[in-house]
Amino acid sequence: MDSDRVRLVKPPDVRPLCASVADGTVAIVDQTLLPGEWRFVSLTSADAAAEAIRTMQVRGAPLIGATAAYGFALAMRVDPSDAGLRQAYGLLLGTRPTAVNLRWALDRVSVALRSLAPALRADAAWREADAIAAEDVEINHAIGLHGVKLIERLAGQGRDPVQILTHCNAGALATLGWGTATAPIYVAHGLEIAVHIWVSETRPRMQGARLTAWELRKSEVPHTLVVDAACAQLMQQGRVDLILVGADRVAANGDVCNKIGTYEKALAARDNGVPIYAAVPSSTIDWSLPDGSRIPIEQRDAWEVLRVGGGETIAPAETAVLNPAFDVTPARLLTGLITERGVCGATAEDLGALFPERRA
Amino acid sequence: MDSDRVRLVKPPDVRPLCASVADGTVAIVDQTLLPGEWRFVSLTSADAAAEAIRTMQVRGAPLIGATAAYGFALAMRVDPSDAGLRQAYGLLLGTRPTAVNLRWALDRVSVALRSLAPALRADAAWREADAIAAEDVEINHAIGLHGVKLIERLAGQGRDPVQILTHCNAGALATLGWGTATAPIYVAHGLEIAVHIWVSETRPRMQGARLTAWELRKSEVPHTLVVDAACAQLMQQGRVDLILVGADRVAANGDVCNKIGTYEKALAARDNGVPIYAAVPSSTIDWSLPDGSRIPIEQRDAWEVLRVGGGETIAPAETAVLNPAFDVTPARLLTGLITERGVCGATAEDLGALFPERRA
Repeated sequence: MDSDRVRLVKPPDVRPLCASVADGTVAIVDQTLLPGEWRFVSLTSADAAAEAIRTMQVRGAPLIGATAAYGFALAMRVDPSDAGLRQAYGLLLGTRPTAVNLRWALDRVSVALRSLAPALRADAAWREADAIAAEDVEINHAIGLHGVKLIERLAGQGRDPVQILTHCNAGALATLGWGTATAPIYVAHGLEIAVHIWVSETRPRMQGARLTAWELRKSEVPHTLVVDAACAQLMQQGRVDLILVGADRVAANGDVCNKIGTYEKALAARDNGVPIYAAVPSSTIDWSLPDGSRIPIEQRDAWEVLRVGGGETIAPAETAVLNPAFDVTPARLLTGLITERGVCGATAEDLGALFPERRA
Repeated sequence: MDSDRVRLVKPPDVRPLCASVADGTVAIVDQTLLPGEWRFVSLTSADAAAEAIRTMQVRGAPLIGATAAYGFALAMRVDPSDAGLRQAYGLLLGTRPTAVNLRWALDRVSVALRSLAPALRADAAWREADAIAAEDVEINHAIGLHGVKLIERLAGQGRDPVQILTHCNAGALATLGWGTATAPIYVAHGLEIAVHIWVSETRPRMQGARLTAWELRKSEVPHTLVVDAACAQLMQQGRVDLILVGADRVAANGDVCNKIGTYEKALAARDNGVPIYAAVPSSTIDWSLPDGSRIPIEQRDAWEVLRVGGGETIAPAETAVLNPAFDVTPARLLTGLITERGVCGATAEDLGALFPERRA
């Protein structure tokens, strides 16, 4: 691979968060309106940032982290006292339980502020949020550069196009740029390696259909939408060369918590010999958890399942519903992880080798 | 089990097809209107019967077979000639490709008519359709009596309630009575064995949410709705004791073609040691196919995926869609089959032992 050429590939023109320290504004795209409308909403307080995360106007582990960091900065403009710091941290941490990037970003801002005098905290928080946002783009770009080698190898083996399945949206819309699972795809597309993406719709919130199909279309990456339950059959029929997913939290042993349905895809991948990787910035790795069994799985409201596309309820209205947002794919089912430092096996050993500073 | 008590359990009060030879009417419930409305529609011609099958006003392998048989009878009232017979057969067979009960029912009526003078065919066809409908109820009842033993055994092992997962609707609405996968459930419920049913919604047509939840509610069988992609996690968490599904076609080796997503459930069942059975009347077994690889998989329209619940499209409107209605679960993943003659392994040997007259 010509490494200069690889580095010149441009990211997709999709940025769901824009912040300006000059006028203290944070604007996020209300993703609940997509694919119909690309509308920015201003966040003017930590409460507004918390609400945007809670209602999934912003979603995706890296974007949640960055939004929370800016929310923290907005809070510091109002009350930079120690009490204000603790309150902002608790407010934002309580928005969603599963994605560990949220805690990671809040910890990072919090650590940066704690030793500062209150009067200095607002600016410092903003700088830290800006750094988190800028690093996210770099990290995802690195994931793309490492991951594209997997795609290139398959193309070299004659897969034309290389058929890649992804679930939910671990795309540019879930990050500050490139996406995680989509970063290798965008790099491959930029290098004119022929790819075709199977987009699983991702019930109940339809992030695959609403968001991934939208952003792939915008970047002119060929893709086809299927229902979640059709993915295993595609693999059975030999129509999937590679699976790339994101993650909301990875345990130290490589267990991957991601959108509900990822576990089923991994089972089908194993049954059909399809390689499956989770693309994860290191901020998604929860080094404190030895395995995935204690990752908190968010349970969301019944209406997400019962009401689809703004239409009638799909079941009798009083039907009991269980609506878990995430599941845990055991590390044994994953071919590997794609991090900003390279591709590795989903094991404690391999992760420790890539991130020696995090070894217990 | 007290066999008298078992036999006295009443079927659910759900009958989606009523026919009267006296006035030559066939009335079917338009299942596309459920769960909102229980509305009968009169079928007055073979064309109308074909259209009802094609548009899924009636669906479910056994009900498709019976509706086609009555459609055949309606055709014979108009043109009982040999040409008319051939035309009716072709018209009805062409409605849907996967459920083999359709061909089975048409063959059965056709064989009954062929040697008769045209003037006798209309009445004979109606009698044969009535016989198919009546036998369907008996066959499903037998499936219920055999299958309930599996549930009773789990209850005896302390599962309280016995947690059963089902996919799509292989319920009373898919048959003339009892359902196939639901027959053991209704019998267990009638015997006051505590059961709780996990209903997977079954994208894209939502037969689980729209139909199974509806009929379980009507019979007061406790149940909870989940998205398709959540089923594997339920198994991982030890919350599923048994999986019961129906089938649209079973190959002679026990490969099971059923609603898209069944294969994924079987993979998750294997990974978690959960028993999984397909409940199948013998009319669903295609003895001519050595395995499932040549079962035709119906591809349906993109709008089924893109438009849900009558709302907006869920993806950009021109998004390419692949919409396979069924998949094939390899026999190796199934614990067994529940037929009207008993429970057996999903193998050619076991099926041949239960149905020796069909042995090649």
